[in-house]
Amino acid sequence: MGAHPYTPAGLDLPGYVPLRLSQLEIVGPYLGASLFVLAAVWLLSGRCGRLTKADRLLMCWWAFTGLTHLLIEGPFVFTPDFFTKSNPNFFDEVWKEYSKGDSRYVARDTATVTVEAITVLLEGPASLLAVYAIASRKSYSHILQFTVCLGQLYGCIVYFTTAYLDGFNFWASPFYFWAYFIGANSSWVVIPLLIARRSWKKICVAIQHAEKVKTK
Amino acid sequence: MGAHPYTPAGLDLPGYVPLRLSQLEIVGPYLGASLFVLAAVWLLSGRCGRLTKADRLLMCWWAFTGLTHLLIEGPFVFTPDFFTKSNPNFFDEVWKEYSKGDSRYVARDTATVTVEAITVLLEGPASLLAVYAIASRKSYSHILQFTVCLGQLYGCIVYFTTAYLDGFNFWASPFYFWAYFIGANSSWVVIPLLIARRSWKKICVAIQHAEKVKTK
Repeated sequence: MGAHPYTPAGLDLPGYVPLRLSQLEIVGPYLGASLFVLAAVWLLSGRCGRLTKADRLLMCWWAFTGLTHLLIEGPFVFTPDFFTKSNPNFFDEVWKEYSKGDSRYVARDTATVTVEAITVLLEGPASLLAVYAIASRKSYSHILQFTVCLGQLYGCIVYFTTAYLDGFNFWASPFYFWAYFIGANSSWVVIPLLIARRSWKKICVAIQHAEKVKTK
Repeated sequence: MGAHPYTPAGLDLPGYVPLRLSQLEIVGPYLGASLFVLAAVWLLSGRCGRLTKADRLLMCWWAFTGLTHLLIEGPFVFTPDFFTKSNPNFFDEVWKEYSKGDSRYVARDTATVTVEAITVLLEGPASLLAVYAIASRKSYSHILQFTVCLGQLYGCIVYFTTAYLDGFNFWASPFYFWAYFIGANSSWVVIPLLIARRSWKKICVAIQHAEKVKTK
C-alpha cells in the first residue's frame, strides 16, 4: 500500500503519485482565472444594452460556475487514473489536492462520481447557456437558471448526505474539512439558493399576471 | 451467511427473515390502493369548479406519487432493519420483494438510501402541496410541479447511474430487472419529463407575456 496524505489512512491507492504542486500553486491559478472570467464577463456584459446590474452579476456567476463545472470537474470525471499519472497535469493535481478534503474523489466513490458526472454533462453546458439566455433576454432565462440551481442543490444534498452516511471521515484534518469540504462547496449551496428563490419569485409574478389577463 | 433470494449471492444479510407474502399479495394491495387514490382525487377534483381535465389528471398523479413517496418509500428510509424483523409488516415485505429487482435496497447502499431520503422528505410533501396548489390555482403551482419533477428526475439519474457504476448486477433475474428495476421506476422518468416540459412551456409563455407588457 503506497503512502498517501488522505483519510482514512487504510485507503488503498495503488500507484499513487504524490502531489508536486503546492496548495498556492493550485488555488492561485484557479482563483486568478476565475477573477479574470468574472471581470471579463462583467465588462463585456456592460456593453450589452438594457442589462440590469443583477443580470450582469448573474452572467458572471453562470460563466464562472459553468467553466468550473466543465474545465475543473470535467477532467475529474473523465480521468479515472488521475492520481497515478506519472506526468500529472494541473487538473490531476487539483483533484489530488481537493481529495485532502474529501478522499472519496481519489477513491472514486460511486455517488461522488455520479454527482460530478451530472454536474459536468448537464449543469456545465446549461450554465453557459444561462449566460447567453440572460444576455439575449430569452423567455426561458429564469426557468433555465432555476433548473441549474435545483440540479446544483440536489447534487450538494447527495454529496453531503452520502458523506454523512458513509462515516463522515474523509478529510485529512479539520483544516481541509472546513476549507475544502465545506468552504469550497458552500458557494454552490448559498448562491443557487438565492438565485432559485429569485427566479421562483419572478416566475410567480409573471404567472400571476398572465392568470389575471386570462392568457389561458 | 443466511440464504436469501438476492443478487449478488455473496451479499451478507445477517438475520434475514424470508418473505412471507407472495408477489400478488404485495403488488395487489399497492395497485388497489393506488387506483382508489386516483379515482378519489379524480372524482373530488370534479367538484372543484374551473379545473381543466389536465389539472385534474395532474392532481391524481401528484396525490399518487406523493403518497407513494411518503407511505411506501418512507418506511424504507426509516426502517433500516426491515429485512430482519421477525414480525414484518406490509411495508417491510414490499422492500424485501422490491430488493429482488435491486438488492441495494436490502443492502442499504448509501446512494440508494440518500436518493430515497430526499424523495421522502422533500418530494413527498411537495407532491401533496402540488395537489393543493393546482386545486387552489396558486401562482406557484407550475414552478412547484417543475421543482418536484426535476427532483424526481435527478433522483432517477443518480439511481440508475450509481447502479451502472457499481456493476449493474443487483437483480435476481431478468424478470425482476425489467419488472422492478426498469418497470416500476419508468413512470418516475416519463411522467416527470412530460410535466416538467409542460410547466416549462407555461412559464415561458407567462414570462414572455410579462416582458411584453413591461411588468418589470
